[in-house]
Amino acid sequence: MTDSTAPDWSTRFSNRMSRVRASEIRELLKLLDQPDILSFAGGIPDPALFPTDRIEAGYRQILTDPVLAAQALQYSVSEGYLPLRQWIAERMTRDGMPCDERNIMMTAGSQQALDLLGKLLLSDGDTVLTGRPTYLGALQAFNAYQPAYLDLSDGVLSAEPDPIFDARAAGAVGYFVPDFANPTGQSLTRDERTALLDLADRLDITLIEDAAYRDLRFSGEALPTLLSLDIVRRGSIEQVRTLYCGTFSKTLTPALRIGWVCGPQPVIEKLVLLKQGCDLHVSTINQMVAHRSVSEGYDQHLGRLRTAYGAKAGVLLAALETYMPEGVTWSHPQGGMFVWVQLPEGMDGKTLLERALAEERVAFVPGEPFFAEVAATDTIRLSYSMPSDPQIQEGVRRLASLIGRMT
Amino acid sequence: MTDSTAPDWSTRFSNRMSRVRASEIRELLKLLDQPDILSFAGGIPDPALFPTDRIEAGYRQILTDPVLAAQALQYSVSEGYLPLRQWIAERMTRDGMPCDERNIMMTAGSQQALDLLGKLLLSDGDTVLTGRPTYLGALQAFNAYQPAYLDLSDGVLSAEPDPIFDARAAGAVGYFVPDFANPTGQSLTRDERTALLDLADRLDITLIEDAAYRDLRFSGEALPTLLSLDIVRRGSIEQVRTLYCGTFSKTLTPALRIGWVCGPQPVIEKLVLLKQGCDLHVSTINQMVAHRSVSEGYDQHLGRLRTAYGAKAGVLLAALETYMPEGVTWSHPQGGMFVWVQLPEGMDGKTLLERALAEERVAFVPGEPFFAEVAATDTIRLSYSMPSDPQIQEGVRRLASLIGRMT
Repeated sequence: MTDSTAPDWSTRFSNRMSRVRASEIRELLKLLDQPDILSFAGGIPDPALFPTDRIEAGYRQILTDPVLAAQALQYSVSEGYLPLRQWIAERMTRDGMPCDERNIMMTAGSQQALDLLGKLLLSDGDTVLTGRPTYLGALQAFNAYQPAYLDLSDGVLSAEPDPIFDARAAGAVGYFVPDFANPTGQSLTRDERTALLDLADRLDITLIEDAAYRDLRFSGEALPTLLSLDIVRRGSIEQVRTLYCGTFSKTLTPALRIGWVCGPQPVIEKLVLLKQGCDLHVSTINQMVAHRSVSEGYDQHLGRLRTAYGAKAGVLLAALETYMPEGVTWSHPQGGMFVWVQLPEGMDGKTLLERALAEERVAFVPGEPFFAEVAATDTIRLSYSMPSDPQIQEGVRRLASLIGRMT
Repeated sequence: MTDSTAPDWSTRFSNRMSRVRASEIRELLKLLDQPDILSFAGGIPDPALFPTDRIEAGYRQILTDPVLAAQALQYSVSEGYLPLRQWIAERMTRDGMPCDERNIMMTAGSQQALDLLGKLLLSDGDTVLTGRPTYLGALQAFNAYQPAYLDLSDGVLSAEPDPIFDARAAGAVGYFVPDFANPTGQSLTRDERTALLDLADRLDITLIEDAAYRDLRFSGEALPTLLSLDIVRRGSIEQVRTLYCGTFSKTLTPALRIGWVCGPQPVIEKLVLLKQGCDLHVSTINQMVAHRSVSEGYDQHLGRLRTAYGAKAGVLLAALETYMPEGVTWSHPQGGMFVWVQLPEGMDGKTLLERALAEERVAFVPGEPFFAEVAATDTIRLSYSMPSDPQIQEGVRRLASLIGRMT
């Protein structure tokens, strides 16, 4: 029997695939392979800052000890490696979020935390309230669960309640990056954090706090996390409405794929069941290596990262100041990896990218894919984590020249 | 403002959580920590067979080379590490499944392949056709997508078409472990494989082939995979209805969390988008280490595993023959890690487990959770991968003694 008719796969994919689309960032990252491109595109850490020696020593010490090796290479529990969960709980407790290992589940980077939280919390048609703009990867994770999106636009937190907004936001899942957000580099002020929790209390919103960049502050004073403010309000992590996502991807290395969720135990217990069905557990050996890598000298290591990224941000901000024509404005991050640029009115970020690649060999990410509901297309994201100082200066000079020609 | 009322999380969880339950296997695995238990419970590989030296050398060689280290610790593409995908494609081609790297996506173990395939293929209320019994982890992965289940009971493949079965199975997603299945250790015969593909063609069923144990054959002749038979029927992997899941968890080590899906390119492209939203990619360094570990001497390594597991299976089968009372029957695996035991009629596997733990300090997994639709509770799964020969013999002696007392 032969049958050369291929199945029509489009009819076999589930409903949820209608919302799953290719990422523009991903397509852009392919450009990084071209050596003559000056790229502000990738939001990835500088490999020169990876603690490679420490990680190498971790693998070596574990794998040359037969007892540790047998444990490190075997299946392990879905909630994650206990000493690492304890270390994280202690550190979060020091950062104003008293909790213990029962409140922590390890995930494959914080991206998986977002996917699992979407799976846990989102039924078809539920609403996700996000910043405007917000992290594209969160939209990609949530899209598979087919929510409606609602923007938290500037000013909503300080304005009088709006019955139309309130009706849409009531009972929603709120997703926010309070510290040095991707893509804007901006943080919520202390008053905005309090107002966001007030809004969540008033409208019974479940909050997801993405703290991916929190450890990368290079200027200004640390602000309390949403989770810490929520714990103060309610007296205990077991009473909060905020679920916190952390990661070692920006501080240690992305390739270990290690992040975590922190929240009340009933939530963690359900997440552990989902994690088990999804991929059983995070790589045992990678968790053990991460634990060794952070157990000693981690704060000095963070200090080096902060100094390095702060210096690069300074170079980028100075170059923008020097070269950009009038009508262009930008954010002034105190941490993280990103500057958000507002183009002259009516200038489209995607068109600018096409011309920047063709005429100036400069890459960045247009702002549009970072908007959940209503897009502002006259925006772009610049990342300063990867290029050298001269590359930053030359890239901005070229980009500014092009923008000047286009206005 | 203070508010001590904790959110009622049960009202916040999505509909799909109604089907997500704690696994009995998982609870049982905790028993492995008790040193005096003779355990046939865990379906995990023997750590004495891990190629630890080779894995250690892989991490060391990569991390002491600055260029490789920078790549190994960085973010990477969602489809996976190209040299590893090429190696897998070549190996699958040799095993009768001509394909190339565009047909391969890496996953975090084959458990993640099952989750992503569920996400890709299952809309609410779709039907999943499975063997009876079937792999519990597949049910855990699929449950989050709320399918109906339909058993492919013994004899269906050789019987005349049944209109009631056909109506339920039409358009379903079929999930099968043709080689040395978990939990039975049994394989589909060549005729059953052909009949299963005939059924799939007749009822337009999409097939998922889980090949987790295929490389662990210790006796008998290799049989063609469902995918290879499908390719022969249709002329090319681009025309097939079968999606194949492979893994290094049973052959290399589970802790690297490396598996893969092989299928037509339009399916792989969609899976890559889902993978990106779920956790971005498999640990870069672990993929590079896996590639180094399999690039040389892998077949000799597999030979050692087959000899070792074959010897243990022989010890278990001989002990069953020696000790088990009449009325107990069992499977005779030619590979893999499991023997499936049919208890005397009416004897409940869970009750037996409770008494085996209390009276004999023997552990195993009752059969019930491995059934998708209609359970046979008078069954248990024994794994011979972990216990030593004397432990296997003593464990079976004790278990047989208890069964004798209960009949």
